[in-house]
Amino acid sequence: MESDTVCLIEQNQLPFKFEVFYADTSEKLCQAIQTMVVRGAGAIGATAGYGMAQAFLQAPANSLWPYVEKAKEAIEATRPTAQNLFYATNRIMSVAKASEVPVEAAIAEAAAIADEDAAACRAIGENGNTLISKGDKIETHCNAGWLAFVDYGSALAPIYAAHHAGKDIFVYADETRPRGQGMRLTAWELKGENVPHAVIADNAGAHLMSHGKIDMVIVGSDRIAANGDVANKIGTLEKAIAAKYYGIPFYVAAPTSTIDPNTPSGDKIPIENRPDEELLYQTGPGSNGEISRVQVCSPGSEGLNPAFDVTPASLVTALITEKGIIKPDSNTIAELLQA
Amino acid sequence: MESDTVCLIEQNQLPFKFEVFYADTSEKLCQAIQTMVVRGAGAIGATAGYGMAQAFLQAPANSLWPYVEKAKEAIEATRPTAQNLFYATNRIMSVAKASEVPVEAAIAEAAAIADEDAAACRAIGENGNTLISKGDKIETHCNAGWLAFVDYGSALAPIYAAHHAGKDIFVYADETRPRGQGMRLTAWELKGENVPHAVIADNAGAHLMSHGKIDMVIVGSDRIAANGDVANKIGTLEKAIAAKYYGIPFYVAAPTSTIDPNTPSGDKIPIENRPDEELLYQTGPGSNGEISRVQVCSPGSEGLNPAFDVTPASLVTALITEKGIIKPDSNTIAELLQA
Repeated sequence: MESDTVCLIEQNQLPFKFEVFYADTSEKLCQAIQTMVVRGAGAIGATAGYGMAQAFLQAPANSLWPYVEKAKEAIEATRPTAQNLFYATNRIMSVAKASEVPVEAAIAEAAAIADEDAAACRAIGENGNTLISKGDKIETHCNAGWLAFVDYGSALAPIYAAHHAGKDIFVYADETRPRGQGMRLTAWELKGENVPHAVIADNAGAHLMSHGKIDMVIVGSDRIAANGDVANKIGTLEKAIAAKYYGIPFYVAAPTSTIDPNTPSGDKIPIENRPDEELLYQTGPGSNGEISRVQVCSPGSEGLNPAFDVTPASLVTALITEKGIIKPDSNTIAELLQA
Repeated sequence: MESDTVCLIEQNQLPFKFEVFYADTSEKLCQAIQTMVVRGAGAIGATAGYGMAQAFLQAPANSLWPYVEKAKEAIEATRPTAQNLFYATNRIMSVAKASEVPVEAAIAEAAAIADEDAAACRAIGENGNTLISKGDKIETHCNAGWLAFVDYGSALAPIYAAHHAGKDIFVYADETRPRGQGMRLTAWELKGENVPHAVIADNAGAHLMSHGKIDMVIVGSDRIAANGDVANKIGTLEKAIAAKYYGIPFYVAAPTSTIDPNTPSGDKIPIENRPDEELLYQTGPGSNGEISRVQVCSPGSEGLNPAFDVTPASLVTALITEKGIIKPDSNTIAELLQA
């Protein structure tokens, strides 16, 4: 945040352009989350935190709390599945309410949330790295790298740590239809960090597993229920089922801020449906280098576009957090949150 | 075939343009199969049959058999996974060799293969329809409709039969990355036949299954081994594993010409790898209506693009053929081929 403007990497323009999006009002900030200028568990959380700080800064003096409450509701309505959104808005509100100088408390808390996110991801990397052996071939889905957090990432943090430790790993990045976060963002991150990788169609995962080409799957999460069920990008569930079928470890890497103790199980996690045009059209640079949009689906057919699915805890080999690695269930999750 | 030219629907142009591709030489015919002007088990088989007839017609009188043998090899090299290719080339060759007028025999046999394909698909539709109940929601992968055969299709034949019988079915068409045969060809066919449907990302299958929204999966096949293992479009295996996990019937619809008695099991089926640009670029009409190609993947990353996978017979609830419905294994397959 510079003054009262929240500055975000415009992820919709990546990997073809690197632009910064300046959200100088709460409306623009909400629009940025909604249209996925910023996406990813921790990045959404940090943005929501700064969005709350922005609301405190911009509130009229005579109606601070109503203004801030309204901003909070608007921010929370942007991405219903994302736990870190609620984690950040509630935390800021609670600290500000307890403070005699709510504005300053909100700003400080937003910075703390962002700093903690980076620190948690760094620890996730170190913890997750202990699960990776030399030469491992790792499949990941969507983007849970540093773009999706304040730094390091969740699913990619152990991958970066293993790579920097010289473990000679190879990453299969699922393209992650419909929005292609894997082929656009994860591939861009991995290339930038010189991690050997190949992009694959989401369809190719089980095929590679059946040929012994995948040693483990690591994904991130948008919300983890109190029983360990994991909401993550659509398609995660298929990888978890296939990994179970082939006896391949399936790891979920996430900071504890992604765990929602108020959601008892995965079937209570709201699943966001996004516009079907994400499925029916594709965008990218054409032969002249200009970004354009082409229709890829037969005209007149509709699409159905759920953005997330829920993987039951029984399919998760382990949850990799900043506080340690657990086999997730109601007891281990409760202990972890109290640690 | 008109005179010695094989006429094919240019499926790469669908659904945005309907064009006919005229293959007036064996080279053009091979190129048409290779570049997927024509694709789909039965359509490839019929095209290969007519391609052989074309070779007999165009062979120099003084070197008929060497010319035809060379054309056969070239045709067989186009799509290594497709069993119907070999079924057709071998059948034509065998009949022609046994005939005193090989050219005429080849032409008649090519027509017979095409006619039998249409008849088999019609019977598959009738047989498969017996498995479909009123109101069923059916997921299908890739395109195994009339475009992929001479008529009716394999996986879509029971769907068309059930629709025409007024069973009020709904179809979820997997988009089928990377080439999008589901969103381009299946959606186009279903809309043309007024079958209610929605296109979904390949990632969404298990999610819908977990919510009870899929009653059965029906797919086609490119080659079925003697033990019942099924090669089909990449991603089929993930649907089969997910269907098993949720206890949902997984049906493979195919004419017996797709069964390869000489391939003992699925691990012996050659899997075609296709160029990674199919994954990295997408093509379709832009805002001006002109077809153009856009880059969808982060520049500098490579893709891995296996075109097929193998679903073990143990995951196949039943095989729907023109000769009947079986639970596939070595014995039932052998009995079926002798029926």
